[in-house]
Amino acid sequence: MLDTPRPRTRSGGRNARRAARSAPVFDMLPGLERNLPVCEIMTGSQVERIHDASMDILENVGVQFRDPIALADWKRAGAKVDGELVYLDRGLVMDLISTIPSDFTYTARNPKKNLRLGGRHSIFVPMTGAPFLRDLDDVRRNPTLDDLAMFHKLAHMSPALHSSAHHIVEPYDHPISQRHLRITYSSMKYSDKTFMGMTTSPKNAEDVMDMCAILFGADFMETHPVTTGNCNGNSPLVWDETMLGAMRAFCYHNQPVLCSPFVLGGANTPASVAASVAQLNAEALSALAYTQVIRRGAPAIYGHYLSTVSMKSGAPMAGTPEISLMNFMIGQMARHYDVPWRTSNTLGGAKTFDAQAGYESATTLSAVMHAGANYIWHSAGWNEAGMHCSVAKFVVDAEQCAMAHRMAQGPNWDDFDTAVDAVSDIGPGGHYLGHPHTQDNFQTAFFMPDLFDNNSIEQWVAEGEVEITERALKHARKLLNDYEEPKLDIAKDEELRDYIARREREIPASDELNQSF
Amino acid sequence: MLDTPRPRTRSGGRNARRAARSAPVFDMLPGLERNLPVCEIMTGSQVERIHDASMDILENVGVQFRDPIALADWKRAGAKVDGELVYLDRGLVMDLISTIPSDFTYTARNPKKNLRLGGRHSIFVPMTGAPFLRDLDDVRRNPTLDDLAMFHKLAHMSPALHSSAHHIVEPYDHPISQRHLRITYSSMKYSDKTFMGMTTSPKNAEDVMDMCAILFGADFMETHPVTTGNCNGNSPLVWDETMLGAMRAFCYHNQPVLCSPFVLGGANTPASVAASVAQLNAEALSALAYTQVIRRGAPAIYGHYLSTVSMKSGAPMAGTPEISLMNFMIGQMARHYDVPWRTSNTLGGAKTFDAQAGYESATTLSAVMHAGANYIWHSAGWNEAGMHCSVAKFVVDAEQCAMAHRMAQGPNWDDFDTAVDAVSDIGPGGHYLGHPHTQDNFQTAFFMPDLFDNNSIEQWVAEGEVEITERALKHARKLLNDYEEPKLDIAKDEELRDYIARREREIPASDELNQSF
Repeated sequence: MLDTPRPRTRSGGRNARRAARSAPVFDMLPGLERNLPVCEIMTGSQVERIHDASMDILENVGVQFRDPIALADWKRAGAKVDGELVYLDRGLVMDLISTIPSDFTYTARNPKKNLRLGGRHSIFVPMTGAPFLRDLDDVRRNPTLDDLAMFHKLAHMSPALHSSAHHIVEPYDHPISQRHLRITYSSMKYSDKTFMGMTTSPKNAEDVMDMCAILFGADFMETHPVTTGNCNGNSPLVWDETMLGAMRAFCYHNQPVLCSPFVLGGANTPASVAASVAQLNAEALSALAYTQVIRRGAPAIYGHYLSTVSMKSGAPMAGTPEISLMNFMIGQMARHYDVPWRTSNTLGGAKTFDAQAGYESATTLSAVMHAGANYIWHSAGWNEAGMHCSVAKFVVDAEQCAMAHRMAQGPNWDDFDTAVDAVSDIGPGGHYLGHPHTQDNFQTAFFMPDLFDNNSIEQWVAEGEVEITERALKHARKLLNDYEEPKLDIAKDEELRDYIARREREIPASDELNQSF
Repeated sequence: MLDTPRPRTRSGGRNARRAARSAPVFDMLPGLERNLPVCEIMTGSQVERIHDASMDILENVGVQFRDPIALADWKRAGAKVDGELVYLDRGLVMDLISTIPSDFTYTARNPKKNLRLGGRHSIFVPMTGAPFLRDLDDVRRNPTLDDLAMFHKLAHMSPALHSSAHHIVEPYDHPISQRHLRITYSSMKYSDKTFMGMTTSPKNAEDVMDMCAILFGADFMETHPVTTGNCNGNSPLVWDETMLGAMRAFCYHNQPVLCSPFVLGGANTPASVAASVAQLNAEALSALAYTQVIRRGAPAIYGHYLSTVSMKSGAPMAGTPEISLMNFMIGQMARHYDVPWRTSNTLGGAKTFDAQAGYESATTLSAVMHAGANYIWHSAGWNEAGMHCSVAKFVVDAEQCAMAHRMAQGPNWDDFDTAVDAVSDIGPGGHYLGHPHTQDNFQTAFFMPDLFDNNSIEQWVAEGEVEITERALKHARKLLNDYEEPKLDIAKDEELRDYIARREREIPASDELNQSF
């Protein structure tokens, strides 16, 4: 079990203030231990209603597993298989998912950055998969491996981000067939936080497992999750061979898979919030159950990617009320089954880092905090419906996560009596700025965002009317300037490089440089 | 009691769709009946701890009432009075506030727009008090009476705004001493929604009461709240003569007062979230209790204005984690005392309508929805720490309120079974766009914001790269173009104009044109 220390912000006093001043600003915040009550929008009987509807779907509509190995596995596990359709009895499903750990420790190469995941324990993970970036000059273009390294460094330097993820952006300057190797290496090299593993094909997933074995040891991985892989379902009710093969690679090695139906509400689900959740729940459970067919007791995460579709344009939307509601409901379902769950954070459909992006992102962040999500993915950089990762938005989102991290801890009661004593000391009509309690606590009592300007307009004008994008890019440049590489063990680094070199000799370099997801 | 019809969005089917299409888009949404669970960040014993600390403050530190009438009133009511300090025994306070109605109906001149307030019933009210506006060309300048009328028209045309408030912006083209008359008339004239009454002086408040009596009848007001007045406290623990005199004017006429300590956390409260709430709670209760000294049983609202202060610059901040936490806690305290409560919404400290404004506003909106606030003030237009009201932000905030209104209703279960049946109809790998259930429900199932662009970047570029400020201003122009004045009864209109003419002869026109609050 991970020791989750109380965050610095909780301990008042002069020593704490001194410590806060001298500590490097890019220390990672501990994994979040939420004290915020979860938003239970459904009654117990409504949870049962979703559960029953999902079970009816699994038993009577069935789920398509477009993969001969999975179909054979399901037959052996006792499911009714008809062509590619698998009908899952509710007893079988519930029995299988019962062995998924309700929480686990996610190991980083720096053990101080290990994270507990599940129950009240949550983590923030940056966005991934962007085919474009908005760079340090806010120019929108295709990313390179250097850009990817830059984002891994920014993730490393952002206290509230708990992971360097994997392909935050798609590095277009390397053949797609070999890209997963370079992405994985970049995640491992430029940050010592947890990272994600590519699931772009079963073979690619095997390569990631090999690289993790180099970094952590194959035996260690048998008992310790060291990476996470995402497997998207094709809603409605389809899992394909690529995803299922990648899932097997991860599960065989005891590495957690995010079982993520890809939901565009209204297009690939019914035009109903509650029925969309029932379908998504059936889909997630079918994959969660399959992880336990692959390996009983392997960790797994109830996932989803979730948007609603504009019926005017067909475009996915972000920050809508129904996305918030579905997050609350999915959280309730995951807790009903006692499995950790994943959501998507700070989504935005804006084309630039404008007010729309701010509203969408903050609405989503608030919703997922109140929903009680554990694996809070896409927590930094996402804009334009995931088509680009913005450097400016990345650092602002990361600060927003730090603010949400603080909020979800709830109020500090430790100094309540001395703080209330200050009210008698000051009395009616006074002010607190010079009071010893204020002096001891002002640095930590109220969060002061670095990237928001709260000065007067006169001061803002005098300072050149710097808007948030420019402020954020300046901050990103400073982070990159201050970045210090968390050194990899030299022997392991060499072994990883040798592995990549060998695999790149073995894997034909594809001509394509297009996006992988 | 107001009959709160189920909102249109809840009833599916072709008829509902046809009705939705033919209904004017600017119909007011009904008052919000929240189904969203309230966020209870404190345990019951923590609520008691705040309560006890507040009672200790009221009994032992005392509250300054800088007003001879209030001091005499308190003496008669049995409080210990020493100079301007009033010491309130907890028994007296709890007895007094026990007669505040837990909810009431807030009457509009159009009875279809009456609103229930308290318990699960909430309303959105636009921002007020801005000494500047950003206008239809996004130019920042001092406002005029015409600008104020424009905002009243926009409030009228925004479905989720339940009030035209009062001085959304300060009209600088009219003498400050007479301004309250023109502001009140503008609120009454350009919208038939509820409105607020000015409390800039006891005499001004009396004028507002007279004008309300013309519009509604003095007898009617004796039993029906027709306006609301805000009275700010000077934290820590001071109420001044202006506010107390205005409070008396409202309470005498049975009109609800928002008792609002003005909190800059860390500057005029201790540097502690919990202790700030304890102080604010004592302050609010002292004024709430005084409303009942003035008139037993008069409606009153637990208010607050709340910001935290940057200890780097002294500037008030918005959207910080502590503001969210304090909102959750204040909501719990107000429910503990069973009184309706007011909060501030969509606050922002940004100088322009940029991403910062979006993050700050959406964070605040989410927090106040989860906090379960009843009177959700400053719900549209606020930016630059309240120094300006932005037309662009006004209409976007109003749409955000509509989205929050939808979210807080919770999911629709009415069509759950038929929606789940669609899952069997479609089966694995299909899509729902042509399904009859989708056809019947696509317009209402998922909110489609008008002011967010979710199209592809190619389409966005082809359409001229229109960013949100420009889109919003275009929308505002359209609303103003479509605006139809909800006619005032001609006799009442004439009487109001006569009253204003008479009072403007009686009140010397001051030279000052500076801001009132």
